[in-house]
Amino acid sequence: MAADDEALDRIDRWWRAANYLSVGQIYLQGDATLERPLSAEDVKPRLLGHFGTVPGLNLVYAHLNRVILERDEPVLFIAGPGHGGPATNANAWLDGTYSELYPDITRDAAGMRKLFQQFSYPGGVPSHTAPETPGSIQEGGELGYSLAHAFGAVLDDPDLTVVCVVGDGEAESGPLAASWHGNRFLDPRRDGMVLPILHLNGWKIANPTLLARIPEPELAALMTGYGYDPIFVTIDASEPHADAHERFAAALDRAFSGIDEVRRAAADGARVPWPMIVLRSPKGWTGPEEVDGVPVEGTWRSHQVPLADVRGDADHLRMLEEWLRAYGPDDLFDDAGAPRPSTGDWGPRGTRRMSAIPQANGIRRELDLPGIDEHVVDVDAPGGSDAGATEVLGGWLVDVIGRNPETFRIFSPDELESNRLAPGVFEATEKQWNAEVEPVDEHLAPHGRVMEVLSEHLCQGWLEGYTLTGRHGLFTSYEAFIHIVDSMFNQHAKWLEACAEVPWREPLPAFTYLLSSHVWQQDHNGFTHQDPGFIDLVMNKSADIVRVYLPFDANTLLVTMAECMAATDRINVVVAGKKPAPQWLDADDAREHVRRGIGELPWAGNTPDGETPDVVLAAAGDVPTQEVIAAAELLRDGIPDLKVRVVNVVDLATLQSPEQHPAGLADAAFDALFTTDRPVVFAYHGYPALIHRLAYKRNGHENLHVHGYRERGTTTTPFDMLMLNDIDRYRLAVDAIDRVPGLATQAADVRAELVTAREQARRHTREHGVDIPVIADWRFAARS
Amino acid sequence: MAADDEALDRIDRWWRAANYLSVGQIYLQGDATLERPLSAEDVKPRLLGHFGTVPGLNLVYAHLNRVILERDEPVLFIAGPGHGGPATNANAWLDGTYSELYPDITRDAAGMRKLFQQFSYPGGVPSHTAPETPGSIQEGGELGYSLAHAFGAVLDDPDLTVVCVVGDGEAESGPLAASWHGNRFLDPRRDGMVLPILHLNGWKIANPTLLARIPEPELAALMTGYGYDPIFVTIDASEPHADAHERFAAALDRAFSGIDEVRRAAADGARVPWPMIVLRSPKGWTGPEEVDGVPVEGTWRSHQVPLADVRGDADHLRMLEEWLRAYGPDDLFDDAGAPRPSTGDWGPRGTRRMSAIPQANGIRRELDLPGIDEHVVDVDAPGGSDAGATEVLGGWLVDVIGRNPETFRIFSPDELESNRLAPGVFEATEKQWNAEVEPVDEHLAPHGRVMEVLSEHLCQGWLEGYTLTGRHGLFTSYEAFIHIVDSMFNQHAKWLEACAEVPWREPLPAFTYLLSSHVWQQDHNGFTHQDPGFIDLVMNKSADIVRVYLPFDANTLLVTMAECMAATDRINVVVAGKKPAPQWLDADDAREHVRRGIGELPWAGNTPDGETPDVVLAAAGDVPTQEVIAAAELLRDGIPDLKVRVVNVVDLATLQSPEQHPAGLADAAFDALFTTDRPVVFAYHGYPALIHRLAYKRNGHENLHVHGYRERGTTTTPFDMLMLNDIDRYRLAVDAIDRVPGLATQAADVRAELVTAREQARRHTREHGVDIPVIADWRFAARS
Repeated sequence: MAADDEALDRIDRWWRAANYLSVGQIYLQGDATLERPLSAEDVKPRLLGHFGTVPGLNLVYAHLNRVILERDEPVLFIAGPGHGGPATNANAWLDGTYSELYPDITRDAAGMRKLFQQFSYPGGVPSHTAPETPGSIQEGGELGYSLAHAFGAVLDDPDLTVVCVVGDGEAESGPLAASWHGNRFLDPRRDGMVLPILHLNGWKIANPTLLARIPEPELAALMTGYGYDPIFVTIDASEPHADAHERFAAALDRAFSGIDEVRRAAADGARVPWPMIVLRSPKGWTGPEEVDGVPVEGTWRSHQVPLADVRGDADHLRMLEEWLRAYGPDDLFDDAGAPRPSTGDWGPRGTRRMSAIPQANGIRRELDLPGIDEHVVDVDAPGGSDAGATEVLGGWLVDVIGRNPETFRIFSPDELESNRLAPGVFEATEKQWNAEVEPVDEHLAPHGRVMEVLSEHLCQGWLEGYTLTGRHGLFTSYEAFIHIVDSMFNQHAKWLEACAEVPWREPLPAFTYLLSSHVWQQDHNGFTHQDPGFIDLVMNKSADIVRVYLPFDANTLLVTMAECMAATDRINVVVAGKKPAPQWLDADDAREHVRRGIGELPWAGNTPDGETPDVVLAAAGDVPTQEVIAAAELLRDGIPDLKVRVVNVVDLATLQSPEQHPAGLADAAFDALFTTDRPVVFAYHGYPALIHRLAYKRNGHENLHVHGYRERGTTTTPFDMLMLNDIDRYRLAVDAIDRVPGLATQAADVRAELVTAREQARRHTREHGVDIPVIADWRFAARS
Repeated sequence: MAADDEALDRIDRWWRAANYLSVGQIYLQGDATLERPLSAEDVKPRLLGHFGTVPGLNLVYAHLNRVILERDEPVLFIAGPGHGGPATNANAWLDGTYSELYPDITRDAAGMRKLFQQFSYPGGVPSHTAPETPGSIQEGGELGYSLAHAFGAVLDDPDLTVVCVVGDGEAESGPLAASWHGNRFLDPRRDGMVLPILHLNGWKIANPTLLARIPEPELAALMTGYGYDPIFVTIDASEPHADAHERFAAALDRAFSGIDEVRRAAADGARVPWPMIVLRSPKGWTGPEEVDGVPVEGTWRSHQVPLADVRGDADHLRMLEEWLRAYGPDDLFDDAGAPRPSTGDWGPRGTRRMSAIPQANGIRRELDLPGIDEHVVDVDAPGGSDAGATEVLGGWLVDVIGRNPETFRIFSPDELESNRLAPGVFEATEKQWNAEVEPVDEHLAPHGRVMEVLSEHLCQGWLEGYTLTGRHGLFTSYEAFIHIVDSMFNQHAKWLEACAEVPWREPLPAFTYLLSSHVWQQDHNGFTHQDPGFIDLVMNKSADIVRVYLPFDANTLLVTMAECMAATDRINVVVAGKKPAPQWLDADDAREHVRRGIGELPWAGNTPDGETPDVVLAAAGDVPTQEVIAAAELLRDGIPDLKVRVVNVVDLATLQSPEQHPAGLADAAFDALFTTDRPVVFAYHGYPALIHRLAYKRNGHENLHVHGYRERGTTTTPFDMLMLNDIDRYRLAVDAIDRVPGLATQAADVRAELVTAREQARRHTREHGVDIPVIADWRFAARS
């Protein structure tokens, strides 16, 4: 239904109020409601904030209130443009959510003043939409992820519409440019809808924006090409606001009709273009037209604070007051400073308010986790059976999917099969795909639990959107290329860290990475595919938020993944192998080992309980653990008197001391395991420095001799890769001999044999281009 | 001119030969020319490689030979699709470049056999286009950067055309999706042209590709929207090859005419859409149609090796032989195994060969570096003057630009002004922009030395393309958001590392990052803008390739940047402040200090030459150094007897021992500076663990107590940020007291005063929302 004049007037009042409240946040610290003429002391000493994008965001928000009222459907609002915080704060205060969640910020003059003061102030709230912002799942700091978040948020929530305002700055970024294609993946019958509003206000900090500066037919073609039917609304600063409102209201009506049409067509199995809006509105609209003789409204000069020297320049102070009074605060707010009913009480109520929508403010949907019993690999003796860890996991994921048909998804950049989770998971589901299908395609369906697109950014952004709205999932990728989303990981970790300080936010489901095709399994992909450094990045974040697991066989992977899926407010990184490999722990041992996160593998060593070993061989990671087990075998065969202990680390956090990380192993237990004075030869999956860093505060850390990936890579066999990086069994055994005082002399012949065997292995693998068996015929049945 | 039948026949011969050579690389190790029936022993034991994309790449390459001959213009070929190595190797061998650069790989049967054997084999060459590949500036490992490289490569090279084959897999990635817009920035009058060929063969590893599965009108609209005039060529597997050749030749002719038209229009100051080609060709075209009863040619099953069990399955072996013989090797190669003249000798000669083009194979254009003398800041006494480091640098960059009007560029994601290099650099240049301009815009021009786009991916990719073709530049960004290009940095570092092993490649210009708006200068941007972790990532790469500098004032920044710009085969990371700050070293001292990379600041301490200090205060980074200088002052004021030494580190590599890094400080010098037994309180710009990691092998490393960014961030003042992370002057001074045995008791009153002063400072900055002066009134004239 078309918006009548009365409705448009209400919208205008909301919009003016939101604009007033936004300007107030940027400028005011004293008198919030302009009860008296503005004085310099009412103005903040430092002006921090961005006005440019605010009036447009407020316009969209105000108009959406009408649409929500009319349609009585949930709408989640995402503010993509950077530093749009004043707008989202203002709207949440207007609709009452702010005061409900922050009782201190009352819906009156006193609360308004606090709302203003806290903005971009020490101990206050950031200048961009943030975890502190009611109704937000989107940080407006680093740009480019709004639209991917939007598509992730609507998955499996068919009643929901996400209205995503895309800034024309962020629209230049790669992740955003790829995100438009999300509509090719969604199923309007079982997922919600996304309405993108490309907000062109023409400038970034100091440059024009690209999409505002291409011919309109090309922009229309671009959106058509992305699968949309664009609706253009262009607002001129000089036109009456009522005209602008009328056109924007009509555009929204047309867009929501378009949404209905997409849903209807999908119900018939057809596809029509999705609606989207291109909103051109002046940057800094309603702000000062001209300052100090240069144009400001409608230019990049209003990107941040249009009036920069309000305290020092009486003219600027006067202009600020005029600017604020032009919104008509006396008309908008009552004597107590509360919004008049006609200003702020006509909008949606309760959880229909965009700032109060449960999807954004933390409802965690339950995940029904199956047991692992039916999937564990029988291990009669360590090394006694072979299995591919990720393939076994795929079996368990079939059960997870079966029990959670609407709350669990897997995302992957075309690597599900390469990482061997498929074809297993296809027992339970298909890959969701709503573009064209050809007869030869397999496992594609309009709806399914797996989403594959060759963009790590989209996988990450979609799963973030999915978990931020309370659902669960897994992102599986090649280990080396997960660096593509380093910055997205950083920002998501910061979001979770900041959420912990926001009392009204409920715990969020964990975000879990399964990294496979890892550095030690790149048969032919070569140097470009070898990079285990994501772990280092992750371990820089706060200990409460991150966990890194290196399960070393299928059963430890199963137990680990079940633990990860049950976690909240966490980012889990699990690195696991995809190739058939020896299995070490049976189900019970795996459970106990993962519970501890670290422990001895007694069957791989020969140091009786209660005795001190001569040397400890430790490992983290599947391939390093295999090499350490083999190295221990070599040592025990060659030097039976040598007391060796073998230790495996599944949870890297255990290496940290308990005051550094809540999962840190107690110092006494650490000392009992590693000793305080014996050499520890440590084979680590990634860059060796990390182990030193984690164990830095431990007794005896100077006895740690860490082998790992030393950035030596090329196109060669996996075993040659181990030798290139000095982490193969022979090298580890030799290092152990060299570290035990006197042993190199005493066991010189064994040492020489190992060196020779190593050279033979190197020649063999290089000349024949084939790997040597990772574990030859060593079996440990006899000793287990 | 249209290609005649004779030309098309030559093209077909080249194409068939390239296809033969590609299949040979994937499969053959013995008889390369099929002199006898193929036996299992002629086939590699492990089949590694990707055939799917190869015939299309070979088609483009073969046809471009004709165009180059006709136009006599340089064309640089970029193979975007992953694992296209067999194609680029084959074409380089055919045109003779391979044998010139690798004399061992002769252009005959013996050389062909070696070409085959080395492919994806230990000690050989990767399966993707790589540094080892003649004519390549593009690694086909991680995907998404081909088109950005292409645009970077043609800047300032107006005669060059880069033909960039974009794979339909990589086309889904964010960086690639944003890259199309490059044509809005280039100036066809003074830059070269890029001809993108979107190669749709329909599938990735295990999924269809998106752009192959949207309606053709939408794909056409998408390309129109990106600013192109798309030319569609669709090839069916069942049609005669001659027909396909005819259509593709015509499309190329139309595309190159389009290039001429773009240039002509630009000469008149007009803009017309750029040509691009959409090439649909069957995946695995010319390979086995059907294997084991399922379709292979034209499906995802031919992504890697269409016949998987050639050694074990006689039927597969027979099919492989039929497949190879279908190309007509006897017709294509002479008895010696060399390409017949009609096969391989009709193409371009010398450096017109795409595999021999100097732009790709390492010509480094000279950079004429100006001195810094005219830009150094006068520093009569340490701390005696104020300046903004990046602003001063901007002045020097004016000179660099002036002397190198065609070989130096600056790239930035809309942060040039925010990082304060502008408006300074606008004395010398403008921002290059070829989209629409409005009257209010400033400093935009069709050609200029600065390129700004809100995409770190594009900035990185463009500068990579620019430096990989021998030119010079700078990428300036916010420190926190440089993580967006972590993976691109990784891949570029790996490219440089691998280049060092390729004897015929010349040294390449350095890639230099200038990171500002850093973690300690985020007044109001808050937690999302605080991340100094890029340095950690960088330091994981090989020591020969990377350098990280933390100049601590304007003069050290000038000297550092001059050194960085002169370097080759390196990635430099420079972190510098943008705000007015005290200046410490005059030009001579700055030169000497940067030359050493590390050294004492004698005027800030009070330990006479030759004596051992009681405590060392060390710092790396501008803000940490200021805090350390202030802490030393506090200590000297409070405890005059305490002997303090202040050390600054500009080049982080100096902390490593010389066997770890060529720039590592000698152990004796390190010991002399830091002592081996006195406490060292170290204030570091980033995450503290890095300092421990770098200094791990040093004597006395256990005496290092590192303060740095501890992931404590919020919206607050810079000084409060220091306090939150325990790296403020008061905390450092207190730590120094606590680390010197007995001093905490002896100087208990001073310690208490410092603790009180700290609390006062915290209250002050939080309550008033203003920073406290970073350095109050301390001046060091008297002691210098």
